[in-house]
Formats: sequence, structure tokens, C-alpha cells
Amino acid sequence: MTEQLAVAVLGANGRMGAEAVKAVEAAADLKLVAALGRNDSLDTLVDAGARVVVDLTVPESTEANVRFAVEHGMHAVVGTTGWDAERLGRLQELLTGRSGVGVLIAPNFALGSVLASAFAARASRYFESVEIIELHHPDKVDAPSGTAVRTAQLISAERDAAGRPASPDATTSERPGARGCDVDGVRVHSVRLRGLVAHQEVLLGGPGEQLTIRHDSFDRVSFMPGVLLGVRNIASHPGLTVGLDGYLDLGL
Amino acid sequence: MTEQLAVAVLGANGRMGAEAVKAVEAAADLKLVAALGRNDSLDTLVDAGARVVVDLTVPESTEANVRFAVEHGMHAVVGTTGWDAERLGRLQELLTGRSGVGVLIAPNFALGSVLASAFAARASRYFESVEIIELHHPDKVDAPSGTAVRTAQLISAERDAAGRPASPDATTSERPGARGCDVDGVRVHSVRLRGLVAHQEVLLGGPGEQLTIRHDSFDRVSFMPGVLLGVRNIASHPGLTVGLDGYLDLGL
Amino acid sequence: MTEQLAVAVLGANGRMGAEAVKAVEAAADLKLVAALGRNDSLDTLVDAGARVVVDLTVPESTEANVRFAVEHGMHAVVGTTGWDAERLGRLQELLTGRSGVGVLIAPNFALGSVLASAFAARASRYFESVEIIELHHPDKVDAPSGTAVRTAQLISAERDAAGRPASPDATTSERPGARGCDVDGVRVHSVRLRGLVAHQEVLLGGPGEQLTIRHDSFDRVSFMPGVLLGVRNIASHPGLTVGLDGYLDLGL
Amino acid sequence: MTEQLAVAVLGANGRMGAEAVKAVEAAADLKLVAALGRNDSLDTLVDAGARVVVDLTVPESTEANVRFAVEHGMHAVVGTTGWDAERLGRLQELLTGRSGVGVLIAPNFALGSVLASAFAARASRYFESVEIIELHHPDKVDAPSGTAVRTAQLISAERDAAGRPASPDATTSERPGARGCDVDGVRVHSVRLRGLVAHQEVLLGGPGEQLTIRHDSFDRVSFMPGVLLGVRNIASHPGLTVGLDGYLDLGL
Repeated sequence: MTEQLAVAVLGANGRMGAEAVKAVEAAADLKLVAALGRNDSLDTLVDAGARVVVDLTVPESTEANVRFAVEHGMHAVVGTTGWDAERLGRLQELLTGRSGVGVLIAPNFALGSVLASAFAARASRYFESVEIIELHHPDKVDAPSGTAVRTAQLISAERDAAGRPASPDATTSERPGARGCDVDGVRVHSVRLRGLVAHQEVLLGGPGEQLTIRHDSFDRVSFMPGVLLGVRNIASHPGLTVGLDGYLDLGL
Repeated sequence: MTEQLAVAVLGANGRMGAEAVKAVEAAADLKLVAALGRNDSLDTLVDAGARVVVDLTVPESTEANVRFAVEHGMHAVVGTTGWDAERLGRLQELLTGRSGVGVLIAPNFALGSVLASAFAARASRYFESVEIIELHHPDKVDAPSGTAVRTAQLISAERDAAGRPASPDATTSERPGARGCDVDGVRVHSVRLRGLVAHQEVLLGGPGEQLTIRHDSFDRVSFMPGVLLGVRNIASHPGLTVGLDGYLDLGL
Repeated sequence: MTEQLAVAVLGANGRMGAEAVKAVEAAADLKLVAALGRNDSLDTLVDAGARVVVDLTVPESTEANVRFAVEHGMHAVVGTTGWDAERLGRLQELLTGRSGVGVLIAPNFALGSVLASAFAARASRYFESVEIIELHHPDKVDAPSGTAVRTAQLISAERDAAGRPASPDATTSERPGARGCDVDGVRVHSVRLRGLVAHQEVLLGGPGEQLTIRHDSFDRVSFMPGVLLGVRNIASHPGLTVGLDGYLDLGL
Repeated sequence: MTEQLAVAVLGANGRMGAEAVKAVEAAADLKLVAALGRNDSLDTLVDAGARVVVDLTVPESTEANVRFAVEHGMHAVVGTTGWDAERLGRLQELLTGRSGVGVLIAPNFALGSVLASAFAARASRYFESVEIIELHHPDKVDAPSGTAVRTAQLISAERDAAGRPASPDATTSERPGARGCDVDGVRVHSVRLRGLVAHQEVLLGGPGEQLTIRHDSFDRVSFMPGVLLGVRNIASHPGLTVGLDGYLDLGL
């Protein structure tokens, strides 16, 4: 048997962190060497010999955590939000000269969601029309979802690059809101329904045909295959990578 | 063999009328005795011995056509739009005392669409959340579609009758239009996509479950089974009937 | 405030029973007066003054539990399987002469699933074609699901009653199994996919149109609204009722 | 304005050919210089100065047509079936030494369908489960469809290359056919429904998530964007290309 990779989880008492602890423990090729909560010392990571640190904490502490890991030669897989341009700049600087260390910061670890957005954006070059429907539980406070906004932006950029005009729309009489909101020229519709979790559908249409790419996220356990993919491949992706796409062989 | 029922089609050169001519000709139990265009005389209907007149003309002529039919003791199946309350009132008056004559005026002859709306409205009594997505070709000028507005009104009435509160919605931050438009308390989203014809989805959600009722209309031929259902059953529905529902054994 | 209805849950330590305990406790109009596990005495029900007993136990004990409830004048809402014709016959006999007591035995308490099957069966009268796709997690051992078989049987009975011939099918060259299995003349397809829970789609097709009725069950909590509907309405449904349909105002 | 590209259509009286004639005529950058039926002489192509020949004829004549085009230095875009390995071999030989001439032979010109199959195959590397549902009108004689078989084979090859085991399936009790047919280890289900044209859905599932890639073909006009893409780009794809994928920037 090959040696197990030593993994530490930060934020181990949170909902995502707890799932990550279970996922690492269940993986035969990984070994959980530390599972830290908010009051635990980062020095534990050194003592435990962690090679990869999974950060699933809060925006307030993620930067310090990642900095500690990098400074101690550990790779970091980060699912925490709050990484703006300024923080990313500081991290990039820190990584300069530490050529063997990798950091993966991903706003979304659901493989299916990442694939769906990438496929939809690429396909949008070839279709006259494209719209997005996202569907979530009714306790969500923002509409549209961040994923839908990012998908629309990706689509918009691809269509601009391909010289595609806007989707056709002859609407002259509209009840306010019927046609959704406009995100960079792409219409987005937000459904809120009890029973749902997080779902997104990109509809692409051309003469006589439709292509639909839908992703359903039923449970946060869906993020774990993406986290493990990051953990297993980070050693071969030194430097900073933003977005799980860089770890997928999409070839797009 | 039983005797064939004598049927006349008005507006036979229009797109819907042409389909109706074909559908009547193809039905073994029906006999096409007249197919009239805009300049043909209605007297032909009498000479031809029509028992049922199918009116698929234009708002300007439909009232005169139906009046002629009723006055000559013929039943009328009407798919033409433009029947407002005033016209319906005059027709009702005309029918008084002509107890054997039936008139069916239906804004929508697609059986599946009528069934979908009826089922969705009834089901909405039992679910916490309900929203409507309608999808059409991008040359449509109004949003939402008339069918979606009627479906939302039916749903709203059923929920009021059952004492159901509005669907929950925690949205506090919305890009304008993301949550669709509000029709009598029901959110409606309108998608416009090249390649589509006319489609509608009602989504109903409760804790841990979803019920989806979807109707796709791919071609105007979809209206013909409803027209034939009207033709075959109108003799047993004397007086004025508005909406195909009255001819369906929904039991709702 | 109106008086609360006294409810007892049997099988309170099972997965469904635990959900029922939570659901009853959360309902303002209900009062949980007993929650019994397998070793608890049924006499507790009498002492606690239960008016409705919810049985979510095992096939081995459900008959004795219901018998006890009926003999003590309590209504019973039963979600346990194993009620064959013989057991139902004995129960029917027991209920004779106890005119005020109601028993509801339902194989499926998901409102959406019950509605979907009823709507699909009724709609199948009006469409040329009908097929069923059911989709479940890959740990399920039987294919198709019991719900799909029951839905196919309901559809088959409605179509027979309406004089509908079998769905058209010109297939002459088939890889074994491609066209699904045949349940009383209705084709059923079983998908097994990691990530899914329990889902069913009935597809109805006619010239130029399609009607789709889909139910998704994401979580066993979806059974609770149906259980509570039974609990709240059982007093007005004396005698034996099999199937939640009898408590829904479908009018079908 | 740039010069128009001279295009000829063979099989111009067939259903696909007639659509191609309309599509070429409607494209500002293309000029229809010949539209030949079965009894017209191929010499007309030379006189008309055709640069690209679109062959939408029958298996019996397609090889001679393409040979004629290549020998006269014209590119050929071919949608006719019947190109087996032997024919492709002869064509490959003919093209040797004629380095400027391109031939594109595509079994499927629907962009959406080609994209859907390519995306589904690539995504199948990352999911535990994958199944295919294809849905067609009930006059189709074979099940599953050729497109579904090809998609399953692509998926199977990708999963083999990625070391993915078969999709999990605990079924021990099956009505014959319920679980569909097995194409290279991928389950395929064939639905036949009046009103449908040609539709395919690939379902991919992992823990807590699902990715669905669906293509709907409503009308043969859907093949025209693919034909035009071939016509416009063939000059930069010399030699033999099989499959429209080679002309799409999928990067897969």
C-alpha cells in the first residue's frame, strides 16, 4: 500500500468541516492527523505533520490560517469565503519563492456545479438564446444566487469573445419582473420553493433544438468529492489556483 | 356503422382552420360538409346540413358566425379569441329559449394544458410553495403568457378558498426582476428561447418534496383532440360553456 | 384557543416515528401524549388519554397495535406495511359496530406522490401514449418501485374504463430491456443513480403535446404533512380507509 | 462586403436537402450555385463553380458524389448515412495527395446533440453513476436510438480511461426490462411517446448531487446551424474529418 497523505481539517466543528472530517476518515489513501476548532492552536498542525490543510472556517480567520500553512510548507485547500482581490494579492506575494507549495481557493466545491457552469458557458457560443433558472429553498435571502451570477458572467464573456449578439427577445408588454433580471445581458430567473436545496438550469436554444444543463445539489455532502479531489492533486498544482476548474480535466 | 356527424369549419384557410379541416376529415365518425373562408356565405352552412360549426376565424367575425349558427339550430365550437363579457352576455341571451343548442367557447383547446392548469390549482391547496415558469419562442410580445396568468389566478383562488397563506420567501436582496412577476400572489417567470414553442411548468413544494406539472405544446396540431372532443360532445352540453374543462371528466 | 387533539406515536424510536414525534410536537393544534418504543406497554395509551394513535412500527406488531386502539375507542393512522387482505378483513370485522372509530391505512403518506398518481391516472384517459420513469438511489433492491407498479395499475384501469387502446409502439428492433418493463400494458423504466432519493415521472403524449407529472421525494420528512392530514381528519372518516386519497379533495 | 462562398446542395428535393437549400439561401455569406436532385448531372457542379458540396442524398449515391467533388477539388460536407469503414478507407486514400481538399462526414449535425454527448462523456469521469434516457416518437423502429448507443460508448470509453468502476446497482429483484438495456456497461432507457420528436437525457449522480445534460430536437431545421458551420469552416480542415466535434471548439 502506498503511504497515506496527512490531512488536517480547520473548522472541524462547523457543518462543512464535520463533513470533511468524515470524508477524509473514510478515504483509504488519506489520514486525518488533526481536526481543529476555533480555539485550537495552529501549532498542532506542525506537530501532527500535516501535509495538506483543509480550511473550512470563517472569513475572519481564513487568511491567517492559510498564511500559517504556507509559511510552514503545507498545502492549503480553502472553501471559506471572503477572499477578495486584496487578500489574494497578499497570498500571491507570500507564495512567490515558495515554489513547492500549492493553495486552492474555490468558491464552490460541487464538481457537478463547476462542470455545469463550464459546459454552459462553452455551449453558449453555439446557440442563439440562453437563459438561467436557479431554484432554492425559500429561506435564502439573495436573488439571484451567487452561482447564477457567476454563470451568467462566464456565459456573457464567452459570447462576447465569440461575437454572439444578445439573445433575441420581442417582449413589448411585460408585467414587471416577468422576464427575470439581467446579469451582463443574460436573463436570470430565481425560484424559491419549500423542499428544494440548491438547483440551477441553463437553457440554450437554437432553431428547432434546445440544450439544457441542470445541476441539483441535494446535500452538502456533494462538496466532499471536490474537496478530496483538491487534497489529492494539490501537490501537483503549486502556486495559487482560484476555482476548482483548474483541477478538472475539462480541456475547455 | 353509426351515422357520421356533419361538421363545418369556418376560417378554413387559416392555420388553425386548415388543421381542423384535416382533423375532421381524418375522423371516421365525422363528416366535413363545409369549409368556409372569409368571403364565403354563411348560407352554405344551411345548405350543407351542418350540425356542428367550428369557428376558427377572427375576433371581428366570430360573434356574427356564432349568432348565425345558433339561430339556425346548429351547435358551435369556438376557438376564436375576443369574447369579452359583453359578447358573452349577448350570446347567453340568444341561447335562452333555444334549449337544444350548445356553444363551447374555449381560449385553449390543448387538452394537456387544460388538465395541467386544473391539476396544478387543485394541488396548490396541499403545498406550502407554488411558482410558475412559462417558456416560449422569443417572438412572443407579451410576458407572462395569458395561460400563465390564468393558471396563477386559478391557483390563487384555490389557495384562498383553502386558507393557504402566500408562499414563503425570505428574499431581502434582489436584483430587479430576479423573483419574477407577481400575479395574484403567485410568482411567474417567463423564459424566451429560440427553438421553443409554448411550454409551462407549475412547481409545488412542501417539506422534503416537490410536485411538478409540466405541459409542452410543440405544434398547433395539439389543439385538434380538444376541438374534436368539443364537436363530439356538444350535443350533450346545451347552452353556453366557457372553457374546455366543462367537457373533461376531471371531477375537480 | 381550541382544545388540542391528543396524539400518541407508536414506533417513536424508528426513523419515521421520530419524524412523527417532531411533527406532532411542532403542530399547535396537536398534543403529543405518548411516544412508545417496542418494549413499552400499550396500556400507556389509555392512561395518556390518546384520541389518535399513529402507528409507524413493524409488520409484526401493527395489527395488534391497531386492534388495541380500536378496542379502546381510539382512531388509528397507520403507515406500517404488511396489511394484506386477510388482516384488512379482520380489521373490517372489528370495526363493524364501532361506528365512531376511524382507521386510515396508507402505503404512502407523501401528499405529492398520491396527488401525482391520481392526476396521472385521470389524465391518461385523454392521451394516446403514457409511460413511467421512476428514479431512485442505487441501494434499492427492487425494480420497478412499488409506487410505480401501483401507478401503472391505476393508469391501466382508467384507460381500460375509457376504452383507450395500448400506447402505440413501432419498435421492431430492440436491445433487451431498452423499452423498459410492461406493467399491465404500461411501460415502466427504472433509473438508479447515486445522489437521488425517490422520484417518479409520468409522461403523457398526444399529437403535438406532452403532459409531464413529476414527484420528487427528497427526505422522509415529506411524509409528515400527510400523516398530520390523517390525524386531523380521521374523526370525520369513521370506518376503514385504505390510501390517503380518501382524505384528499381530489374530486377524481 | 467579402466574397460569398459558392455552395451546392445534392439531394435538394429531400426533406433535409430542402432545408439546406433554404439555409444556404438565407445566409448572407453563402451563395447557392446549384441544387441538384437525383437525376441531375454532377457536371453541373463544375459549371456552377461550387466550392463546397453539401451531400444530403442516399447511401447508394453518396460515395460517388463525394468522389466526384474531391476529384474536382471541391470540399464536401456530408450528412448522408452509410459510410462504413471500407468506404471511409477508400475516401482516405483518394484524399492522399490532395492536401487542400476537406471532407466532413457527420452522422449528426445538431450542434446541441454533439455538445451534449461530448459534455456527458467528459463529466462521466467525475460521477459515481451515469444512465441515459432517450425519448422519441412512437413510429421509431429501433430502441435504443443510434445517438444513445454512441453516447453510451463514448461514456464507457471515458470511464474506462479514468479507471471508473461501473455505476452501482443493488437490484436483486427486477421485472424484465425495468433497468433498461446495457450498452458497454451503461444503462439506456428508451421512451416512445406520441408528440415527441428526438430527445436525450444523460443523468450523472454522485453523493448529494446530480448533473443532467438534456438535448431536445424539435425539428430537422436544428441540423442547419451544424451544416453551415461545416460549410464555413471546411476550407481550414483539409483531409477527412468524421464527426462534427472536430469543428467545435470544445477543447475536450
